[in-house]
Amino acid sequence: MKLKFKPIGVVHSPFKKKKDIQPKKYANAQGFDHIQGELEIFQEYEDGLKDTEGFSHLMVIFAFHQSVGFNLHTFPLLDDRLRGVFSTRSSHRPNPIGLTIVEVLERQGNILKVSGVDMIEGTPILDIKPYTPRDQKSSLKLGWLEGKIKWDKRS
Amino acid sequence: MKLKFKPIGVVHSPFKKKKDIQPKKYANAQGFDHIQGELEIFQEYEDGLKDTEGFSHLMVIFAFHQSVGFNLHTFPLLDDRLRGVFSTRSSHRPNPIGLTIVEVLERQGNILKVSGVDMIEGTPILDIKPYTPRDQKSSLKLGWLEGKIKWDKRS
Repeated sequence: MKLKFKPIGVVHSPFKKKKDIQPKKYANAQGFDHIQGELEIFQEYEDGLKDTEGFSHLMVIFAFHQSVGFNLHTFPLLDDRLRGVFSTRSSHRPNPIGLTIVEVLERQGNILKVSGVDMIEGTPILDIKPYTPRDQKSSLKLGWLEGKIKWDKRS
Repeated sequence: MKLKFKPIGVVHSPFKKKKDIQPKKYANAQGFDHIQGELEIFQEYEDGLKDTEGFSHLMVIFAFHQSVGFNLHTFPLLDDRLRGVFSTRSSHRPNPIGLTIVEVLERQGNILKVSGVDMIEGTPILDIKPYTPRDQKSSLKLGWLEGKIKWDKRS
């Protein structure tokens, strides 16, 4: 079974190339929160953006378009041991699909200005969904990531 | 540009058909939390599940395989006004991709037993990612959904 999708838009990011993102520089939970960018949705889909600006946060599903190949065991950026790829957010995965939750700043027609961008310029967008209380999980356990990402363990 | 993906596994759910899910019955933030099911990952990808069991929550990206067609304006399940499709979690969207965050109960080889299932039996899984503090957003604004989903506005 093959599933075919096509981009609904493109990310505009201050990170022009993959090497511009230095993961250790952003190794805390709020690492990318202040990185601003734009989600440009192609005009044929613009009407679908109605009401998105009422939400504080949106989930962006995108393609890791520069990712080639994958290993089932991989070294995560924040660890020096091999981990199962599905326990990481590596871009090299069986289906090179990425997911980032951004904060909405404003919408101008087919452009959403957002912050929390960790994608590179030109990233193809597959879908945008509202972030709801159902997506707000607490009492987290972080497996191998425990102690490697700085966060306020408030909930 | 066409992007092709293939399933890495399949969801086993107590919801055998779409009509088994009565959305209004589950109209609170914890609605599906107690619904248990399994993520069966095909054996060729099983090694990628290493370390996933250390996380309390995983993000499951899947295909709405029974979805046919879409409208850019749609009636959400919990509202009687037309909303932009990207401000809803409707299964009828330009790319029929779904996203659910589940709680991990245990892993047995290529099977993850989870709770929080809102997919139907046979749903093709595209990707699994760990849920991290970066995905835990607070100070939410919910747009049209405000007042329509019951939640504990604690953060």
